[in-house]
Amino acid sequence: MLFPQSVRIDGATGAMSIETGRYVKRLSELRPIFHDKPALDHDVAALDDPQVYEVVEYRKPGSDIFFGTTTMEPGKVGNEFYMTRGHFHARRDMGEVYYTQSGEGVLLLQSRGGETSVLEMRPGACAFIPPDWAHRSINTGQEKLVFVWVCNPEAGHDYADIMQRGMRKLVVERDGKVAVIDSPTHP
Amino acid sequence: MLFPQSVRIDGATGAMSIETGRYVKRLSELRPIFHDKPALDHDVAALDDPQVYEVVEYRKPGSDIFFGTTTMEPGKVGNEFYMTRGHFHARRDMGEVYYTQSGEGVLLLQSRGGETSVLEMRPGACAFIPPDWAHRSINTGQEKLVFVWVCNPEAGHDYADIMQRGMRKLVVERDGKVAVIDSPTHP
Repeated sequence: MLFPQSVRIDGATGAMSIETGRYVKRLSELRPIFHDKPALDHDVAALDDPQVYEVVEYRKPGSDIFFGTTTMEPGKVGNEFYMTRGHFHARRDMGEVYYTQSGEGVLLLQSRGGETSVLEMRPGACAFIPPDWAHRSINTGQEKLVFVWVCNPEAGHDYADIMQRGMRKLVVERDGKVAVIDSPTHP
Repeated sequence: MLFPQSVRIDGATGAMSIETGRYVKRLSELRPIFHDKPALDHDVAALDDPQVYEVVEYRKPGSDIFFGTTTMEPGKVGNEFYMTRGHFHARRDMGEVYYTQSGEGVLLLQSRGGETSVLEMRPGACAFIPPDWAHRSINTGQEKLVFVWVCNPEAGHDYADIMQRGMRKLVVERDGKVAVIDSPTHP
């Protein structure tokens, strides 16, 4: 039987008082998604393969809902801001909610049909991610970007599509500002 | 087709920059759940039927997930703190997440089999509500109690059980402190 629990979330760090799993993504694991491979290889060596983001979750088998935090470090590879892999859900009928706690960033979304949506992430911004929209978070600020996510644990992940083809838009620094540009490699 | 959107949530007031519905519960509508009927009738008259709580939602038909805020006023009826009606979900396989933004309170839960759980609500406390646990929020503080909730819009509500039978526990003020006591009327 499942029992209620209260999990304290630290909105500044993403730490959770109770967790059932976590993983870290380091820069070397994200090589396919950044365009400037020489800059990436340099940073992996010079910065000892830095952590780009960490995901902590609270998952209880038998529940239709689970939640967790994603904490993204600030940083860039060349002029591309640190980003998550980006993914569709395996279940095309399941969406998600991203509720930003601290930092600033961009939530880049792309529908199965190729439409793009760009939402700002800042404290208090609660993003509705409809079913079958791929989503990628990008830390465009100087501090950690922390958000709470909630979805159905059956939603699953399909990383392959975005890993292989990328997304149509890129979020880069240009003239000292955040710019959303067309990807040079996406068809 | 559904499109992503970003909703700004004010954690101090529960206000949402985009909403698809809302309702208010006033004290007179909650008469069945408070034990001290003379105190309730007095307060309804003296305070012009005050608002006890308000629910604001962001719901998009076709999505498996929706969210919103509940904002509870501080107050008591006799020695019982202001509380929500309390409900099971109509769908017994669907849970919920309550993420407290401001204020302080108690989340009182009761399983279908009658087990009780008491969780604290304070900023940063994210409560996991398993499927088939009735839940009621109680504002035990001096300020508004505001929380964000996320669940499946198909979860629905079954208010009748709790409205008619109450919950096994009550949250009252006793000697100036918050106390969880056995209900005098629940079987």
